[in-house]
Amino acid sequence: MDHVVVMAGGSGTRFWPESRMRRSKQFLNLTGQRPMIQETVRRMHPLVPKENVWVVAGEKDAPHLSSRALGIPAGNILLEPEGRNTAPAVALAAFHIARRDPDAAIAASPADHAVSDERAFRSVLGQGLRLARRTGRFVTLGVSPTHPATGYGYIERGDPFGSGRDAAYNVRRFAEKPDLAAARRFLKSGRFSWNSGIFLFRADTFVHRLARFLPEVHAGLTEAFRFAGRKSFRQKLRAAYRGFPSISVDYGILEKETGILLIPADFGWSDLGTWRSLHEFLGRPGENVTFGNVILSDCRNTLVRSDQGLVAVVGMEDVVVVRSGDAVLVCPRSRSEEVKQIAEEVRRKAPALA
Amino acid sequence: MDHVVVMAGGSGTRFWPESRMRRSKQFLNLTGQRPMIQETVRRMHPLVPKENVWVVAGEKDAPHLSSRALGIPAGNILLEPEGRNTAPAVALAAFHIARRDPDAAIAASPADHAVSDERAFRSVLGQGLRLARRTGRFVTLGVSPTHPATGYGYIERGDPFGSGRDAAYNVRRFAEKPDLAAARRFLKSGRFSWNSGIFLFRADTFVHRLARFLPEVHAGLTEAFRFAGRKSFRQKLRAAYRGFPSISVDYGILEKETGILLIPADFGWSDLGTWRSLHEFLGRPGENVTFGNVILSDCRNTLVRSDQGLVAVVGMEDVVVVRSGDAVLVCPRSRSEEVKQIAEEVRRKAPALA
Repeated sequence: MDHVVVMAGGSGTRFWPESRMRRSKQFLNLTGQRPMIQETVRRMHPLVPKENVWVVAGEKDAPHLSSRALGIPAGNILLEPEGRNTAPAVALAAFHIARRDPDAAIAASPADHAVSDERAFRSVLGQGLRLARRTGRFVTLGVSPTHPATGYGYIERGDPFGSGRDAAYNVRRFAEKPDLAAARRFLKSGRFSWNSGIFLFRADTFVHRLARFLPEVHAGLTEAFRFAGRKSFRQKLRAAYRGFPSISVDYGILEKETGILLIPADFGWSDLGTWRSLHEFLGRPGENVTFGNVILSDCRNTLVRSDQGLVAVVGMEDVVVVRSGDAVLVCPRSRSEEVKQIAEEVRRKAPALA
Repeated sequence: MDHVVVMAGGSGTRFWPESRMRRSKQFLNLTGQRPMIQETVRRMHPLVPKENVWVVAGEKDAPHLSSRALGIPAGNILLEPEGRNTAPAVALAAFHIARRDPDAAIAASPADHAVSDERAFRSVLGQGLRLARRTGRFVTLGVSPTHPATGYGYIERGDPFGSGRDAAYNVRRFAEKPDLAAARRFLKSGRFSWNSGIFLFRADTFVHRLARFLPEVHAGLTEAFRFAGRKSFRQKLRAAYRGFPSISVDYGILEKETGILLIPADFGWSDLGTWRSLHEFLGRPGENVTFGNVILSDCRNTLVRSDQGLVAVVGMEDVVVVRSGDAVLVCPRSRSEEVKQIAEEVRRKAPALA
């Protein structure tokens, strides 16, 4: 069977003041539908049945996780005792899934990315799952770059792999977020995709590579899962997590793995990394995008959001204005990256508002 | 004796969202000390004793008027049944004062202007009171213009009047808010002062001119004051006000009067007409001015105010950001004039926030 693991353990401050220490981006309703994590889960239907969709998050996030709102069984919400980045998170889910379904193929997806063409998304996800199942390899989904973005990781394609509806490419290398010059070279070469952060694999492959590349995580989970289904499981898991490194799947496994495949795809993807990228995802260039009770007068290319009361903006261009709870942010679109630092300053000066 | 009448009946929307339909500018704490009306009353001491300071406001403003906070006797707070601009307001006060003190000289002052050099202010106010008392004429205080402002009325000086410490000028004419070209001519000529809105007169002069220029107001008040001190006074006053025109002292009396005098003065005056002029009054050019819980990062020439929660502004220049209660305003300094229109739009769309 096919399964999906939604990685929801992240914490971020780039969407302050909507994101807070106790309310991470994946629990925000950024695109006007539902919280991003609900969008992510919903997007998988009907490709993967609800019983096969898993969410991994931190215990601190439990208040934001309702199996009813997510539309998945309560047992599919996996709470990590502490955040240890994505490798332990996916490993935890893979152990749960392998226990129930040893032949599973798994798509692991961030909880906080946006997709505008969901049909295309499910199509390529299905293709990736088939390919992972058939080959036993790790498969990544690459997004065709539209501009020399410096905020995304890139994947370089090598030789083609296979043909027909399962055609893919061998991955030559993963490149971290480049500077602008490198990003321009990547774009010009035509050989690079943006790393969507979505990867697919067979459960048995993952567990096998975990044993090889992150043996302490494999050993810890193996030990804890001897108590799976028993009362002591959480306590055993907590003990295991204490010894885990904090490491991503990318660094912990994919970088060491060979034979990774890439499927280039276009499904209107954005990682929504900043207020600016949210604005770009939602509006056409120059357009004002508003949420909530907002009055604009003679504005252009603004993103203005209010969760209560009223925000009035007069004669402004290229700015982000966000009112959330007791806090207000005003900054130029082009400086959305700096919101992170502001959120850190708020954490020092007014922790209740961070 | 000398008296001061503080005209506090105005209602304005240019300081939205701090000013609201039920909280006019004169009741706001704009300069960081006290509400403007309290500043205005306090500024008169020790020139005029507290018992001789009068406040005229609308009945709707009663919640904002505390004799304790104002430091004047409760009986000196005069509530008009309805707002009829400044001529009936000053007339009402003049009748009260003349009843107690027929030889009074009166300085009438707006409640919502700012003065940075209070010593100079009291000195010139004292000079004006002496001059009004001695000559029986109306005296205006003119502010030496520092730039070709288009937001103020101007007064043109004629020939000098008197000499020594009571030196003044005859007024040639009052000029309404000019366009920029005219304002530049005024400035260049050296003959114009800004109209501070403060004027001084003997009570008997005022009552006499009222009878001549606004006979219906004079007659109405004369009739009502036959019942002064009795229970029926308020009801008689209400009846009188129904017949009053809505007219300013400038239009109703000064424009028709001859022999008006002007004392040129410099006491760091601003009418605080807009957020921009508040910013200019409080900060040096280019400076950020903040009130309340505000975090600025790499900003220049901004005015940022928050009455609760936190306002964070990153990388902005020449903007006004004001959070007050449930409303937030963001606009360029240069477009502060348009706040009035926004407040009107709010009144239509979200009256509770107007």
